[in-house]
Amino acid sequence: MATAFQRMQEIMHTVTDLGAASAVLGWDQETYMPDGAVAGRAEQLATLSSLIHRFSTNDAARAVATEVLAESEILTDEQRRIAAVYAYDVQRATKLPADLVEESARVASYAQDAWKRAREASDFSIFQPLLEKTVDLKRREAELLGDAEHPYDNLIETYEPGMTVALLTPVFDQLREGTKNILAKIDPHQASVSDDVLYRSYPSDQQLAFAKEVVRTLGFDFNTGRVDLSAHPFCTNFGATDVRLTTRIRENDLRSCLFGLVHEAGHGMYEQGIGPSLWRTFAGQGASMGIHESQSLFWENVIARSEEFWSWCFPKLRDAFPHQVGDQTATSFFKAINSMKPSLNRVESDELTYNLHIILRFELERDLIAGTIEVRDVPELWNQKMRDSLGVIPPNDREGCLQDVHWSFGGIGYFPSYTLGKLYAAMEWNAMQAEMPDVRDRIANGEFDSIRTWLRDRIHAYGRTERPHEILHRVCGRTLTATDFLDYVGAKAARVYGF
Amino acid sequence: MATAFQRMQEIMHTVTDLGAASAVLGWDQETYMPDGAVAGRAEQLATLSSLIHRFSTNDAARAVATEVLAESEILTDEQRRIAAVYAYDVQRATKLPADLVEESARVASYAQDAWKRAREASDFSIFQPLLEKTVDLKRREAELLGDAEHPYDNLIETYEPGMTVALLTPVFDQLREGTKNILAKIDPHQASVSDDVLYRSYPSDQQLAFAKEVVRTLGFDFNTGRVDLSAHPFCTNFGATDVRLTTRIRENDLRSCLFGLVHEAGHGMYEQGIGPSLWRTFAGQGASMGIHESQSLFWENVIARSEEFWSWCFPKLRDAFPHQVGDQTATSFFKAINSMKPSLNRVESDELTYNLHIILRFELERDLIAGTIEVRDVPELWNQKMRDSLGVIPPNDREGCLQDVHWSFGGIGYFPSYTLGKLYAAMEWNAMQAEMPDVRDRIANGEFDSIRTWLRDRIHAYGRTERPHEILHRVCGRTLTATDFLDYVGAKAARVYGF
Repeated sequence: MATAFQRMQEIMHTVTDLGAASAVLGWDQETYMPDGAVAGRAEQLATLSSLIHRFSTNDAARAVATEVLAESEILTDEQRRIAAVYAYDVQRATKLPADLVEESARVASYAQDAWKRAREASDFSIFQPLLEKTVDLKRREAELLGDAEHPYDNLIETYEPGMTVALLTPVFDQLREGTKNILAKIDPHQASVSDDVLYRSYPSDQQLAFAKEVVRTLGFDFNTGRVDLSAHPFCTNFGATDVRLTTRIRENDLRSCLFGLVHEAGHGMYEQGIGPSLWRTFAGQGASMGIHESQSLFWENVIARSEEFWSWCFPKLRDAFPHQVGDQTATSFFKAINSMKPSLNRVESDELTYNLHIILRFELERDLIAGTIEVRDVPELWNQKMRDSLGVIPPNDREGCLQDVHWSFGGIGYFPSYTLGKLYAAMEWNAMQAEMPDVRDRIANGEFDSIRTWLRDRIHAYGRTERPHEILHRVCGRTLTATDFLDYVGAKAARVYGF
Repeated sequence: MATAFQRMQEIMHTVTDLGAASAVLGWDQETYMPDGAVAGRAEQLATLSSLIHRFSTNDAARAVATEVLAESEILTDEQRRIAAVYAYDVQRATKLPADLVEESARVASYAQDAWKRAREASDFSIFQPLLEKTVDLKRREAELLGDAEHPYDNLIETYEPGMTVALLTPVFDQLREGTKNILAKIDPHQASVSDDVLYRSYPSDQQLAFAKEVVRTLGFDFNTGRVDLSAHPFCTNFGATDVRLTTRIRENDLRSCLFGLVHEAGHGMYEQGIGPSLWRTFAGQGASMGIHESQSLFWENVIARSEEFWSWCFPKLRDAFPHQVGDQTATSFFKAINSMKPSLNRVESDELTYNLHIILRFELERDLIAGTIEVRDVPELWNQKMRDSLGVIPPNDREGCLQDVHWSFGGIGYFPSYTLGKLYAAMEWNAMQAEMPDVRDRIANGEFDSIRTWLRDRIHAYGRTERPHEILHRVCGRTLTATDFLDYVGAKAARVYGF
C-alpha cells in the first residue's frame, strides 16, 4: 500500500506533467505556431488547464493533503515542506470553480493573439474586448479567493505569497521619492553621458550569437535549455532539464537582445538550479515571481551592467562589433548602458526609472480590480500617468499601454514582482559581497561559477520549499527594504554621472 | 441534460486535445528540444498517454458508446459514423491495460533518443536494448488485442484497419515479381540515364526556400502549417489548423529536401482537408496510414515526379540553381529523378525498388512479432535480405537497419502502409484521369487547385468516417490491386529508359 506521501507524489507528477505540456504549448504558440492555429490551441490549453484544475482539486487530491499530515512524523523536513506547498496549492485551487479556470485559459489564448494584432496595428481597441474579459475573470477570481484588505491582494498572492497593497504602498512611496531625488542629482549632468553607441547598426545574427555566448559563460546550460525568438522575451520551463529562453532583436538597439537574454537566463538558471528531489512536485519551481525576478535582475543589472563586468566583456564586444564600438572604452560603454533618464518602454528603461513604470502598472491594476477605473480608459490613464511620473507621453498605443504581454495572458498582479525583484537583488548583492569579498574581482575576471553556485545553493535549490520572506531572512538576515536598492542605484548613478 | 452524443463529444474533445498536446511534445522533441530534456519529456509523454488511455477506457467512455447506439435514430449519418469510430477506438483501447500504454510511451521516448545516438554512431548495439523492449511490448500488445490469424495482423490493424498478413502476402509476391520484371527490362538501358545532376552542390537555405515554395504552390496552407528541420522527415498535426512538416537537407542531394517535403505536404494537405464537423472527434484524422501514404505518395511521385510537372517546374529550378542544372532539360531532369536502380536507403530509393525495401521490413517485423527471429539478429538479417532482394549490402548500421525512425517510436506494423499507399495512389490516379481528362495539362500548367480539391472532396474531407476499403470502393469503384501500380510504374520506366 502506497503511503499518503507517495500518493501525493503521483498526483503531483500528473499535474506537473500536464503543466509542462501546457507550457510547451504556450512556448510553441509564442515562437513557432502558425497564425491559423489560434482557436485550436486555445481549446487545447483550456482542456489542459481544466484537467490540471480537476486533478488538483478532486476528492483524491483533497483527501491526500489531510492524510499526509497524519503521517507527518515519518517524513523528512523537506517532505513536510513539499506537503505544505501541496496543501496550499490544493486549497487555493479548490476555491476556483472549473468553468472559471477553463474560461480563463481560453480567453488568455485568444487575448494573446489579439494583443499581438493590436500591437502590430498600434490599436488598443483590438485588444480592449479581450482585456475586458480578462479583467472580469480576474475580478471574479479575486473575489472567490477570499477575504483580503484589497481584492488585488489576492492576485498579488498568486505571484508573491504574503505580499499586499498595504505592504507595497509605503515601499513604492519611498522608491518614488528616492528615484526623484536621484534623478534631480543626475539632471545637471545628463549631457555628460552619451548612449548613442547603443543605437548603431548591429546585425541580428551577430547580436544573437554574442548574447548566447554571454549567457553560456554566465552559466546557462544549453544542454538543458535553448534560445528562440518571440515578440516579447520570456523564460518558460518544462521541468528543470528543459528551460526555454526567448529574446527579440532590434538591429538598431544593442540592449534589447543582449540584456533581454541575460535577464531571461537569470530566470533560466534559477529553474535549472532547482534541487532534483523537488522535480515533478509543486515545490519544484521558483519561490515567487519576486524572488524569480531577483535572479533575472541580479544577472541583468547587478552583474551585466556593472563596471567590472564590462572591464571583462568589453574587449569581446569590440571583437564582435569592431566598427560599431571601436570609439568606445569599457568605461564609456559602462556609462552608456547605465544612462538614466525617463523613457517610454519598461523593458528598455534604466534601472532607476524602471520602478516608475511598475508603480504605474501597479496603480492601474489595483484600480481595475477594485473597479474604480474601466478598461476603455486605460490608454488615456496610461499616458496621463506616464506624463505625471516620467514626464514623457507615448505617441501611440504600441509604445504605450500595449507594450507588455502580461495582461494578455491574464498575469494581473505580476508587475510588482519586478520591483520586488530589484529590491531583493540589491539585498542579495549585499549579502553576497559580505560572504564573498572578492566577488567584484571575480566578475572582472569573467569568473561567474562561484556567483551562480552561491545563488543556487542559497536560493535556487530550495524551490518553493521556503516562502519569499523566509528566503530573504535566511540569505540576507533581514526583511524587505528599499534602502539597499536606493543605495546601490544611487552609487551607480554617482559613478556614471560623476556627482 | 446533454445527449449521449454530446457527452461522447466532450470525451472526444478531452482525448483529442490531450492527443494534440502529446503530438506537440513529440514534434518539439524531434525539432528543438535540448538533449538533456529526454528523461523529463519521456515522463510527460507517458503521463499524457496514460490519461488518453484512461479517458478512452473508463466507465464513462464505455457507457456512452452503448448509450449513443440507443439514440441512433436522432443522429445524422455522419454522427452515426463518428459514433462507430468512437466505439471501435474505445473497444480497442480497453483491451490494453494502462501500465502497458504508459510503459510503451516511456520506452518510445527513450528509444527515439537511443536511435538518434545509435544512428550518429552507426552502432545498432546502442539501440538494441530499447528495440528489444519495444518488440516485447508490441508482442504483448498483439496478444492482448485478441485472436488473429497472425499476431502481426493486430499491429497492422493499428495503421490499416482490415489488412492482414494473409491479404498482403500475395500482393507483395505479385509486386516482387513485377518489380523484378521491370528491373530486368531496365537493365540493358541502365547507362542511358544519368542522375548525377541530383548530387551536385545545392546550398541548404536555397533548397529549403525552393521546396517550401513548391509545396505552397501545390496547396499546402502555411497559415495553418509550417516547416522545420529534423533528423527524419515527418508530418504531425495538432488539429487540422496546425499541421507541421519537417524535412532534412543534404547539400549534395537535391532529392532529400524537395521530395521529402512534397511527401510530407501530401500528408499535411490531407490533415488540412479534414471536414470541420470532424475536428476534435476520433474521426478527425486520416482513414488509415495506407490512405495517408496514398496522399503523400500521390503528390511526391504521381505529381512531382511526372514529366508534366517538370515541364512546368524545371524553369523555376533553373532560375534557383542556374549553375547546378544549367546543362539539363526538363526531360533529362525528369529522367534523372526517375532513375530506377537498387539502392540502400528506403526514403531515397526510386518508386519501383521502394517496395522491395518495404517487403524486407514487413518480413522482419512479421517474424520479430511471431518470435521466430531475435532483435540482436536484425542487422545481419537486414543485410542478408538487402543482398537477396536488392543486390546491395549496407556498409554499416546507419545506412542499414538504423535508417528508419519507425521502430524507435514503436511504429511496428506501419511499413506496409507505404506500399499500400503506392497501390492506392495508382488506383486514385486512374480514377482522377477518368474524371478529369485534362489533368496532365493542368499539371503542365502548374494548376494544382483542382487536383487538391478532387482529393479533398473525395478523400480528405471524410476523415475516418469510412474505412480504407470503403473509400477505395467509392473513389475507384474497385478493391485493392497491385496491377494499376505496376502498369503505372512500368510505363514510367519505359519512358525513362526508352524500352
